Amino acid sequence: MARSSAGESVLTRAVRILEVFDPDNVAIPLGVIAEQACLPLSTTSRLVDELVAHGLLRRDEHRRVRIGLRLWELASRASPTRDLRDAAMPFLEDLHAVVGHHVQLGVLEDDEVLFIERLSNPGAVINVTRIAGRLPLHASSSGLVLLANASPGLQDQILRRPLTSYTANTISDPRTLRAVLAEIRQTGVAVCPGFIHDDALGIAVPLKDAGGRVVAALSVIVPCTDDPMSHIPALQAAAHGIRRELGRPVVPAPPER
Amino acid sequence: MARSSAGESVLTRAVRILEVFDPDNVAIPLGVIAEQACLPLSTTSRLVDELVAHGLLRRDEHRRVRIGLRLWELASRASPTRDLRDAAMPFLEDLHAVVGHHVQLGVLEDDEVLFIERLSNPGAVINVTRIAGRLPLHASSSGLVLLANASPGLQDQILRRPLTSYTANTISDPRTLRAVLAEIRQTGVAVCPGFIHDDALGIAVPLKDAGGRVVAALSVIVPCTDDPMSHIPALQAAAHGIRRELGRPVVPAPPER
Repeated sequence: MARSSAGESVLTRAVRILEVFDPDNVAIPLGVIAEQACLPLSTTSRLVDELVAHGLLRRDEHRRVRIGLRLWELASRASPTRDLRDAAMPFLEDLHAVVGHHVQLGVLEDDEVLFIERLSNPGAVINVTRIAGRLPLHASSSGLVLLANASPGLQDQILRRPLTSYTANTISDPRTLRAVLAEIRQTGVAVCPGFIHDDALGIAVPLKDAGGRVVAALSVIVPCTDDPMSHIPALQAAAHGIRRELGRPVVPAPPER
Repeated sequence: MARSSAGESVLTRAVRILEVFDPDNVAIPLGVIAEQACLPLSTTSRLVDELVAHGLLRRDEHRRVRIGLRLWELASRASPTRDLRDAAMPFLEDLHAVVGHHVQLGVLEDDEVLFIERLSNPGAVINVTRIAGRLPLHASSSGLVLLANASPGLQDQILRRPLTSYTANTISDPRTLRAVLAEIRQTGVAVCPGFIHDDALGIAVPLKDAGGRVVAALSVIVPCTDDPMSHIPALQAAAHGIRRELGRPVVPAPPER
């Protein structure tokens, strides 16, 4: 065990077990879960059994442990981003039909951008984003749009840290980053050619709610050879449409059984 | 308190708290959570505090409790339906562009159909389905397709129960239901005019994986005045495409940071 788990609550341990799962690790043997969560095997086994009994985890045919559908259901049916996603989805589909490649919706979570939706074509340009995946604020077009509109406190915090370079084009100098953020606030668009991968161009615009508050970033990922100007108007039009949709009075939903 | 919570584990209580949230109840005062979860207020308060500390719940500006984005993230990034959803999404988009109204993807969970994806047009015909919402197997086109391909044990279980009628068209007679299930297995399509709402026509086909196992139902919800035959070929073509996609060897994803 890498660190002691004495005194930790059951919930804390259960959360540590859930945190072991990610897009690259969806089916994990019990021993690996114990190791990664830094918990004794017996504790892990007992907690996994209980999480399986509740459907929050499940065991597959190879006795590996996976996230259970019940956990996804509990998290999704009252999802905090449901209204935003519902309002945005028709515009994301339209944008995707025109632009192709990748269209995505990201929100600020902690000090990163968390992607809550992504539409992709098979064979589209490389894109490291995944639904429920995260990217650092300074390196992605969505992240830069969110950072440019974030609190001065968060901006200072990010600017004080080392800024990881993914390619020769990633902004890693705080002074340059500060200037870019000011420019994004003025132009309302972030254009990031090859910031995360040499072949991919990210373009993002802010999504505002009816009150004018930036609640998300709408972005497209296209080949670096594309002219950004050929995508920006479509992105901006979609952002306007979503803002209008978010401002609509809510029609009561039909009763569920 | 409607029932005693003595002897229950912390996890069981936490799950009961999460279960209080649904699409119609996304922001709930603490007292209501305690009442609905049948837990003492002090226990509820302590558990909610801990869930908030982990980001699994959050308190809004009115001190009401909501599902936290972290819970959605943990459940979604290794979601058990991610591969199915990724394979299906381009075909769902194409189908939605042609059919309009609603296109949806549902899986069998317990003894109900759980919808994992839905694309909708503003102004489309009424549809009670929601993402992460459920419907009974006997009343919905997706449910009938899943039930027709489910184990004989589950079929018997559903056929032995009272079958709730939502409209005059819902199948509520077990003998009729058994005949309809046999017909669906033969034709490969369920056509349900006005089964849940008089104005809506549900049409569903099974989604098979590369091994021929039914893993989901693909459906459209259109106005009852539509000719089902005008939608079935497009649905079947999409189901074929998704099956082909599910059978493709998986290309390793680019490394995430």
